[in-house]
Amino acid sequence: MSAEEPAQTRKDFEARLRGMERFYHIHHPFHLAMNEGGLDAEAVRGWVANRFYYQIQIPRKDAAILSNCPDRNVRRVWIRRILDHDGEAEDGEEAGGIEAWLRLGEAVGLSREEILDQRHVLPGVRFAVDAYVRFAQTAPWQEAAASSLTELFAPTIHQKRLENWPTLYPWIDEAGYGYFRRRLGEARRDVEHGLQLTLDGFDTRALQDRAVEVLQFKLDILWTMLDAMWMAYVEKRPPFAGCPDA
Amino acid sequence: MSAEEPAQTRKDFEARLRGMERFYHIHHPFHLAMNEGGLDAEAVRGWVANRFYYQIQIPRKDAAILSNCPDRNVRRVWIRRILDHDGEAEDGEEAGGIEAWLRLGEAVGLSREEILDQRHVLPGVRFAVDAYVRFAQTAPWQEAAASSLTELFAPTIHQKRLENWPTLYPWIDEAGYGYFRRRLGEARRDVEHGLQLTLDGFDTRALQDRAVEVLQFKLDILWTMLDAMWMAYVEKRPPFAGCPDA
Repeated sequence: MSAEEPAQTRKDFEARLRGMERFYHIHHPFHLAMNEGGLDAEAVRGWVANRFYYQIQIPRKDAAILSNCPDRNVRRVWIRRILDHDGEAEDGEEAGGIEAWLRLGEAVGLSREEILDQRHVLPGVRFAVDAYVRFAQTAPWQEAAASSLTELFAPTIHQKRLENWPTLYPWIDEAGYGYFRRRLGEARRDVEHGLQLTLDGFDTRALQDRAVEVLQFKLDILWTMLDAMWMAYVEKRPPFAGCPDA
Repeated sequence: MSAEEPAQTRKDFEARLRGMERFYHIHHPFHLAMNEGGLDAEAVRGWVANRFYYQIQIPRKDAAILSNCPDRNVRRVWIRRILDHDGEAEDGEEAGGIEAWLRLGEAVGLSREEILDQRHVLPGVRFAVDAYVRFAQTAPWQEAAASSLTELFAPTIHQKRLENWPTLYPWIDEAGYGYFRRRLGEARRDVEHGLQLTLDGFDTRALQDRAVEVLQFKLDILWTMLDAMWMAYVEKRPPFAGCPDA
């Protein structure tokens, strides 16, 4: 439809990508409630346990991008994401983002075991996250990289959590907030790279439209994850609630 | 855990599979409301349009099973499902299940175009259905066949629709109910074959447990589809509702 239009300028294309923030899950009713203190402890725990499934799939998503990318220079930068997330040591700051998320889990009152064994992970969250990994495995690596651009919007969400949660949820051990703090810096660095790759690589109008479509797909995933959590932890209608015993 | 237990008898294994009906989406609040006349026209239309996405992926799921199955005798029977669904003629009874579903769509007030272009398909429905197709493509064909056993429970759901909808939803053109009628017969025949394959092929306790796990995965998919529809059409919180304009 717009494929024969001229390419947007780099500046306009960047503004269009940034404008997709309006569909970021920061506007989802679950997130709005979370950031206004409107969730009970079960819902906060449910969010942390479900979001853990996203966290552990992210290195696999990034490894799929590495695997599909023939450009060593890109890989040299992109690999940082896997190292950050998986960590390079058992303990301390070097233990990585997944370990930091586990500590958040403990801070909200979950045991490591119940996070790691995925018992709380809702099927709807699993299907959405798996779709993201699958996309990264099968799409051109530039598209998978562009889909990561929801990072553009992440520093705001982490910053708000750091500002509001200590007051809203005083029962959460503040030692658990390390993940949000570390991602403030990492996301800013990652997104600079991802954004430049996308601005460089999607240089016709048709490609620019495709980049926006791919970013929308990722926004769909984040939104859908929260739909599943809303149903389970706000509506209190988790899967198979009300089914007959047998 | 139970892997070293002796295999269940054929009769007990069948009873265990049939017992999974308790997690069938017939018990989902969306379906309960639907079958009590509790849905408005938008919700009925939303269900038909979203469920269409499932319908059109089913032949691809069945073709994946054919593709992975080296047994000509199994393929000769299984292929019937694809022929039934895709149809073998442009018009009439032979036009197949997907065409019958389109007629249901028209009977509830949707245009063919808006069904075919998938504009109403919710991301959560798409992710769940895609997970099912992907499973059939990558799992052993016997597992994918076993996952189809939700058909065991389908005749009841179709029968209830045929009994209740004409009274509950008098605005629906009854000419649209052909899909439910045709599946009453087809599902009974299909399930007989799928059930025998599963009872034959899963003959250790570990395999029997796996068959139940795979059936649960399929039940998760059907349930999750209705979760997404509940959020959009009962809660009236479709994706990105409430997002800022931009």
